[in-house]
Amino acid sequence: MKIRIGILGYGNLGKGVESAVAQNPDMELAAVFTRRDPGSVQVRTQGVRVLSADALKEMKDQIDVLVICGGSATDLPVQTPEYAALYNVVDSFDTHARIPEHFAKVDAAAKAAGRIGIISCGWDPGMFSLNRLYANCILPEGTDYTFWGKGVSQGHSDAVRRIEGVKDARQYTIPVPEALEAVRSGKNPELTTRQKHTRECFVVAKEGADLARIENEIKTMPNYFADYDTTVHFITEEEMKRDHSGLPHGGCVIRTGVTGPEKEHKHVIEYSLKLDSNPEFTGSVIAACARAAYRMNQEGMSGCKTMFDIAPAYLSPKSAEELRAHLL
Amino acid sequence: MKIRIGILGYGNLGKGVESAVAQNPDMELAAVFTRRDPGSVQVRTQGVRVLSADALKEMKDQIDVLVICGGSATDLPVQTPEYAALYNVVDSFDTHARIPEHFAKVDAAAKAAGRIGIISCGWDPGMFSLNRLYANCILPEGTDYTFWGKGVSQGHSDAVRRIEGVKDARQYTIPVPEALEAVRSGKNPELTTRQKHTRECFVVAKEGADLARIENEIKTMPNYFADYDTTVHFITEEEMKRDHSGLPHGGCVIRTGVTGPEKEHKHVIEYSLKLDSNPEFTGSVIAACARAAYRMNQEGMSGCKTMFDIAPAYLSPKSAEELRAHLL
Repeated sequence: MKIRIGILGYGNLGKGVESAVAQNPDMELAAVFTRRDPGSVQVRTQGVRVLSADALKEMKDQIDVLVICGGSATDLPVQTPEYAALYNVVDSFDTHARIPEHFAKVDAAAKAAGRIGIISCGWDPGMFSLNRLYANCILPEGTDYTFWGKGVSQGHSDAVRRIEGVKDARQYTIPVPEALEAVRSGKNPELTTRQKHTRECFVVAKEGADLARIENEIKTMPNYFADYDTTVHFITEEEMKRDHSGLPHGGCVIRTGVTGPEKEHKHVIEYSLKLDSNPEFTGSVIAACARAAYRMNQEGMSGCKTMFDIAPAYLSPKSAEELRAHLL
Repeated sequence: MKIRIGILGYGNLGKGVESAVAQNPDMELAAVFTRRDPGSVQVRTQGVRVLSADALKEMKDQIDVLVICGGSATDLPVQTPEYAALYNVVDSFDTHARIPEHFAKVDAAAKAAGRIGIISCGWDPGMFSLNRLYANCILPEGTDYTFWGKGVSQGHSDAVRRIEGVKDARQYTIPVPEALEAVRSGKNPELTTRQKHTRECFVVAKEGADLARIENEIKTMPNYFADYDTTVHFITEEEMKRDHSGLPHGGCVIRTGVTGPEKEHKHVIEYSLKLDSNPEFTGSVIAACARAAYRMNQEGMSGCKTMFDIAPAYLSPKSAEELRAHLL
C-alpha cells in the first residue's frame, strides 16, 4: 500500500515534488490539483489526473498527504490552514518572520481535524535550520554563519525583471570566498552584509532601453541590491537561454564554537549543499517530510510540525531496525 | 530546577562531558562515579563529589541522567543495560556491528524501568549517522561517502603501542585529498580503502629497539594498516609531548545523488567537522542527548533510543516557540 500524494500547484516546485515521488517506491502520485483550467495543465507522470483545486473538497479517501506548492506571500497563508482541515499537508513556507503566525493557524486547523501539517520544509528553511539547531545544541558557545550560493535567487531575479526596459533577468547570489575562508578557519569574523555575499545579474534589455539607467536602478535598489557589491552583465536572449536556464543553488551553514575548561579547543561544524536544481532538491526534502507526516499521523499524532519536531527515522522508508543496522 | 547529570567513568570522555555540562546553564554535574578508588580521582568542577560506582544503587532521587563513559568493548555492553534499569542513561557505544544487540538489551531494561536509554551518541556514530540518514531520505538515488580525519585514531594508536619496542605512539588518519575532490565534484568514484585514507604514525621507540622491524610490523598489521599507505616517523618523547598531545579529529559525510525526470541534476550534500578535541566534542553531543533523554522521559516515553529517534527540538534548551522564531 503506497502513500498517496496529491500536489496542489504545478509550477517548478510542484514538478520537483512529482519527480521526487517517482524516486520513492513507497509513494505514488495520486493527482495534481490546480487553480488554472485543468485542461491547460500537462503533467509528466503518465496516467496522473489533473483536477481543479475545488475537487479537493471531496477526495479525503484518495489522498494521504497533500503537498501545497504555492507561494509564501499570499498562497500558503490561506491554503495550508484550509487544507490542513482535510488532509495531512506539507508546505515550504519560507517567510521566516511570519512562521510563528503560520504555525499557529495550521496547528489549530490540523489539531481540530486530527491531521498533521508540516510547514517550512526544504533547505532554508529546512535542512539549514536543522543544522543550525543541531550545531547550537552541541556548541552552546559559538557563532552561526549562513552563506547562500552560488545560485539563482528567484526573488532577486523577479525584482530586476520589474525594472522598466528589462525583458528578462537572472540574479546569482555568490558567497565571498575570503569571508568563507575566514569563517572556516575558526577566526570568528564579524561580517557585514556586503562582506558576505556579492550579487551578479544577467539582463536582457528591451531594444533601445537605457542600459546605464537599468544598471543604476539595479545597483541602488533598496533591500535587494543597495547593501551589496553588484555586477550587471547585459546579454542576448540566446545567451540567457543557453547559459542561464537552470536553477542551481546551494550554500552552507557553519557554526564555530569552543569547548574545554579554558575554552581552549575550537570546533567547526559545516553543512553544505551544491544543488543543480533548487526546486527538485526542495521537492525531495518535501517528499521525505510527506512520508513523515503520513507515518506520524498513522501513529495518532496531529497538529502543526516543523522539521525540528520530526524524529529523523520518520523521514525514511526503512524500518528502525534497518536504520540502526546500516546507517548508524 | 537544573537537570542533574551523573558521570560514570572519568577518563577523556568523562572529562569532555563534564566540560560540556559546565557550558549548559540548564544542567549541573551532580556527581562523578568511578570503579577506581574515589579518593584517587580528582575532578575539575569545584564541589562535585566523587563516589564509588556502587553508590549508584541508591542515588535514584539525586540523578536525572547518568552518562556512561566506559569503553564499547567490555564496559558498555554490561553497564548501559544495568543502569538503564535505574536511571535515564546515555552512552557512546560505537561498535557498529553490535549496535542491534546492545539496543535490544538496553531497550528491555529501560522499558521495564520506565526510563530512557540513548545509545551511540557522539559524532560517528551520532552526527555522522544522522547526516547519512537525512541525506539518504532526501536523495534516494545516490552514493554515500564517509571520510575520517585528519585526526588521531585511538584504536590505531593503541595497536602500535602494543608492538614490542614501542614506548609511545600516535596514529593520524588522513583523507586522500584527490579522493575527497573527486567525491565533492560529483564524479561518483568507486574508491578502495587505500584510495580513501592514508595513515601516519609517530612512534617513540625504546632504547636499542629495531626500528626497521617496528616499521615493518606497523605497515603489515592486518585490519589496522595492511590495506593502507602508511608513513612511520620515529620521534623523541619530547617531540611526542610537544607536537602530539592533543586529540584532534574530524571528517566528513558526503552523499551525492541525482534528481529529475531524466536524473539529469546532480546534488552534493556534505557535513563536515573539524575538531580540536574529539572527547570534548563527543561529550558535547552527549550533553545535548542527556537533555533529550530527560525531557522525553518527563513526557512519559521510555525504552532505548538512538539519535534517529530524537525529534531535534528535544536536544535544545530553548522552547519550541523560540526555536521556530529564531532558528527556522
